[in-house]
Amino acid sequence: MPWAGAETPLRADAVRNRARLLEAAAQLATEHGAAAITMESVAAAAGVGKGTVSRRFGDRNGLLQALLDHAEQQFQEAFISGPPPLGPGVEAGARLRAFGLALLRHEQAHHDIYLAAEPSPGRRFTVPARQVRHTHVAALVRAALPDADANLLAHTLLSSLDVVLVDHLVRRNGMSLPRVEAGWHDLLDRLLVVERT
Amino acid sequence: MPWAGAETPLRADAVRNRARLLEAAAQLATEHGAAAITMESVAAAAGVGKGTVSRRFGDRNGLLQALLDHAEQQFQEAFISGPPPLGPGVEAGARLRAFGLALLRHEQAHHDIYLAAEPSPGRRFTVPARQVRHTHVAALVRAALPDADANLLAHTLLSSLDVVLVDHLVRRNGMSLPRVEAGWHDLLDRLLVVERT
Repeated sequence: MPWAGAETPLRADAVRNRARLLEAAAQLATEHGAAAITMESVAAAAGVGKGTVSRRFGDRNGLLQALLDHAEQQFQEAFISGPPPLGPGVEAGARLRAFGLALLRHEQAHHDIYLAAEPSPGRRFTVPARQVRHTHVAALVRAALPDADANLLAHTLLSSLDVVLVDHLVRRNGMSLPRVEAGWHDLLDRLLVVERT
Repeated sequence: MPWAGAETPLRADAVRNRARLLEAAAQLATEHGAAAITMESVAAAAGVGKGTVSRRFGDRNGLLQALLDHAEQQFQEAFISGPPPLGPGVEAGARLRAFGLALLRHEQAHHDIYLAAEPSPGRRFTVPARQVRHTHVAALVRAALPDADANLLAHTLLSSLDVVLVDHLVRRNGMSLPRVEAGWHDLLDRLLVVERT
């Protein structure tokens, strides 16, 4: 079976190429915003032809989605198995606090890609990333507040960190990000007060 | 100026016609859902020609928007100047409780029109109805919890009642509306606990 052996380096190559293109796209987004991400600009930044970018991602939407998946995966690893307080090893209240700040910063770092890829109303709560976050936050709520309706309260907590809301507050209304972060802590202070007194 | 006098009865007529068409549309929505609202069905239900409906509302989107404005106006009157506890006359915490239940029921009664008319992400927080609700809830939060960031907490409270979220919970996940309503009370119990102990 000569092809199996022959394929292995090609696959590793493809993985490396894909990562290099995503890194180039992420850097373009960081430096010039999501609008700067085009098939051409990513190809140029990565030093490859436009055809290579098309073969990997199809079109610009595919590229943006892959970029979000990539960022999302790093964020998920951090809150599921990364170091505390975002990852496991401290009590649930502290992890909730850390989760909110990390999500706010994650969304701010990628905010225009999130806005460009915002799902339709019908899919807003069913996209996998939202469901993973909800499962995680509901588990922490269940641990921190055993008598709460963790499913509902997790939605409330996540909604207060919604990328479209925070974008509205920070970019349109001129609210500072530290104020939004303080609001997250204040919300948790109020919700966790029973446990702490 | 003969036209000024001549115009008055026409205007009153137009207002009555518009109200009659909106009532017919609202009844169709209640009985058969928003999908049953078409220019033709509303014309037939109100006993007028399709041209009359077109002249008043332009197209189906204009009709849906007018229908929402109509419902929205009634809801706003109720929470701004209606009888307590939704309207003024009781303490802010009790009004917040009543507001959440009233908004949940209002959105459920019109949920498929809201979903059909859901604004784009960029406009979700800037549509007038959302801004009126936010101003109202922020004022109640300021009165009930003077040390809170009322602007932020009002967004959190409103997000927990978001029509797209509640639709996701109730219609897709099979959560009961009473459970969502209990979640609203529980959220306020936790937030207002400092004031009450």
